Amino acid sequence: MQFEISSELIEKIRFLIEENNNEEILLHLEDVHHADLAEILTELSLEEATYLIKLLDHEKTAEALIELDEDARERILQLLNPREIAQELEEMDTDDAADIISELTPERQQSVIAELVDEEHADHIVELLRYDEDSAGGLMAKELVKVNENWSVTGCMTEMREQAENVTRVHSIYVVDDRNKLKGRLSLKDLLTAPSNSNIRDVYIPQVDYVNVHTEGEEVARIMQKYDLEAIPVVDEMGRLVGRITIDDIVDFIKEEAEKDYQMASGISESVEADTGLLRQTRARLPWLLIGMFGGLGAASIINGFETIMTTFPKLLIFVPLIQATAGNVGVQSSAIVVQGLANGTLKGNIFRRLFKEIILALVNGLSIAIIVFIISSFWFETSYNESVSIGIALMSVIIIAASIGTLIPFMLDKNNIDPAVATGPFITTSNDIFGILTYFLIAKAILGF
Amino acid sequence: MQFEISSELIEKIRFLIEENNNEEILLHLEDVHHADLAEILTELSLEEATYLIKLLDHEKTAEALIELDEDARERILQLLNPREIAQELEEMDTDDAADIISELTPERQQSVIAELVDEEHADHIVELLRYDEDSAGGLMAKELVKVNENWSVTGCMTEMREQAENVTRVHSIYVVDDRNKLKGRLSLKDLLTAPSNSNIRDVYIPQVDYVNVHTEGEEVARIMQKYDLEAIPVVDEMGRLVGRITIDDIVDFIKEEAEKDYQMASGISESVEADTGLLRQTRARLPWLLIGMFGGLGAASIINGFETIMTTFPKLLIFVPLIQATAGNVGVQSSAIVVQGLANGTLKGNIFRRLFKEIILALVNGLSIAIIVFIISSFWFETSYNESVSIGIALMSVIIIAASIGTLIPFMLDKNNIDPAVATGPFITTSNDIFGILTYFLIAKAILGF
Repeated sequence: MQFEISSELIEKIRFLIEENNNEEILLHLEDVHHADLAEILTELSLEEATYLIKLLDHEKTAEALIELDEDARERILQLLNPREIAQELEEMDTDDAADIISELTPERQQSVIAELVDEEHADHIVELLRYDEDSAGGLMAKELVKVNENWSVTGCMTEMREQAENVTRVHSIYVVDDRNKLKGRLSLKDLLTAPSNSNIRDVYIPQVDYVNVHTEGEEVARIMQKYDLEAIPVVDEMGRLVGRITIDDIVDFIKEEAEKDYQMASGISESVEADTGLLRQTRARLPWLLIGMFGGLGAASIINGFETIMTTFPKLLIFVPLIQATAGNVGVQSSAIVVQGLANGTLKGNIFRRLFKEIILALVNGLSIAIIVFIISSFWFETSYNESVSIGIALMSVIIIAASIGTLIPFMLDKNNIDPAVATGPFITTSNDIFGILTYFLIAKAILGF
Repeated sequence: MQFEISSELIEKIRFLIEENNNEEILLHLEDVHHADLAEILTELSLEEATYLIKLLDHEKTAEALIELDEDARERILQLLNPREIAQELEEMDTDDAADIISELTPERQQSVIAELVDEEHADHIVELLRYDEDSAGGLMAKELVKVNENWSVTGCMTEMREQAENVTRVHSIYVVDDRNKLKGRLSLKDLLTAPSNSNIRDVYIPQVDYVNVHTEGEEVARIMQKYDLEAIPVVDEMGRLVGRITIDDIVDFIKEEAEKDYQMASGISESVEADTGLLRQTRARLPWLLIGMFGGLGAASIINGFETIMTTFPKLLIFVPLIQATAGNVGVQSSAIVVQGLANGTLKGNIFRRLFKEIILALVNGLSIAIIVFIISSFWFETSYNESVSIGIALMSVIIIAASIGTLIPFMLDKNNIDPAVATGPFITTSNDIFGILTYFLIAKAILGF
């Protein structure tokens, strides 16, 4: 069943575009799914892709444009005039249309909106542009099926068929009162099985999950996931039904968030993909490398400050990489657990209970590692008894400190409304590098006295 | 609208359980959503939770059991006898029932299955148990609505109403032939608007996305996401319709996979959450710490091997943490991009093109960092010109090597069918630590000659 885009197909389409053989192109791409068309567009040159967008049915190209990644879409839209863009937007659901318009410059936004023929559609898009893109208002679409509680089931069926024309998928039918306030819901199944002489008022389900236009996207995702919802209605400050969010948008949202977190943990600060250009890749990566660099130079200053160590106990220096690696690894582990716990709500109880648990864990892991290193350093690296003791105690302390820092920083960021995920990766690693090495030398100094 | 579980409610329920005041408990928990009931259960003691499970309506407790995390569920199920477990399973969809049965010991599985009253349900569960849990067969449920292509639209409506009773959500109606082979689909909307005297054969849509029972879960998620599907039918080797997968299961699957990858990148090898017990936490974390430890000891051996450096160029040693941190950060960044690109399919072209791009990036980033460090080391740390040159060139080389290792390892793992995500985190960091320090000293030795 899977459609595979072969390089033959791409070559064929390239050739047909060059020949301006529109009939053949239409024949080849008639039955292609819009998601596959989007993949084909990314394989073509910018000019070729734009040629196809202008040639093919707007219904299909509009959907394909939605699927494209932002960079590619931006380049194609630059080659279209406002009228052509408006034609694509007419075919989109309001949420997708608003997302795409918001990527244009303010001047272009205005001229595109002016070209929209369907006034209601234009109205809806303008309304959606007002909301923050990560809020429920920014995620919702205006397309939905709603019925008045005072209607009859038969009247409702007729009205509903009409509304359903504009809605790709009917998940739930929302029930509102005369002032458009959300009262409840009905499923198509309920409507099918309801006696036809009854009123909506008698058959609807008054319990309905909903969110407010200002609810954050993450919260919407959490609610929809927790209650296994496939769509959720959105109300305004007055409780009036203004839109609905469907699960496919939430799936995309969850995926994007997960990718962002993963990249953040890997020290990539801007959303990039394998095919993103060099400049943006550098902009996304260099900042973390610079933080790491200053961390490394900080560590160098510390070692430099303990100058006498080099002459009196040079053996201690060879364990610096071990201390540093251990501090980094422990810190990342602890912070990852907290970041994830904060994100999915499994982290209950207060900070101190969490910290206590991490310290117990650190003691267990630290003791295991300290004993192994004590033995190996004594026998393999022939460190003195006091040196080995210093290394072992330092390792234990470093592990406990790293676990504490790794636990506390995400909590602190979260309290200050900063995404705790920024704490993982190079940030924790760098601060742990510095604290780790400082701790190591201070303990060694206390025990060995230099 | 949001239901908040207050500590008063928990206390109240605790008190009522102690008093055996079943009537009051039922009154309090009657209208609670099963997902909220699951949260309440996790707040109670094991005995209290089991008390509620036995008391409340099976329809609700069954759903709540599904929502619980595996550990909590396992403990509760141990306090129920096979008959009681079977009663819960009767209320579940086949996919959930099979998931939960598979968590029991083989002997218990047998005795629970023997207690199932609904023979068809039992049959379906046994069938689902055969599939690998990460395959489409393991993810699918037997509940679906299907019609024969030879039926009339009116006959179909009647039959469908009956089938829909057992199906929580009707996404699509699947059309099969007399031998149960999947032919196409119909939406409820299509059925509503079809002329009632027509046959299914005339109105169904012959294009339908489907997967095979052996398709991997990740591939199912990719297809459903790409084509924005809310349900996908599953066929066997003969093309016969055997089940369907719904988007809510895929949302859970995507979340779990993302969490696993994130944890893997953070050096946590087993799926743990903030509230997981100490033993499993240690088992999940210690292995990576030990790998890091051996990496650190390896680095110690290398420094030890360049003994003369301590006496002739001791200044070089203070930059070891910088070299190590940079190598680690660059390696993780490069591997994260490859791991994500492999996972979401954005990584096109061959390995060498990717490697080339990473090396160019490494040159840009490396040059920036090398220049800054050259200046700072010369003026701040007062290294000699040759020492500064060694450090700068070493940094450049280390960044290029780290980027290459970070790029190549995920590709190699993927080629050998190992999840490339294991490559990120401590694994890459550790190997880069060792290679980085070795490179540093070799270059310094070549330039400074010690």
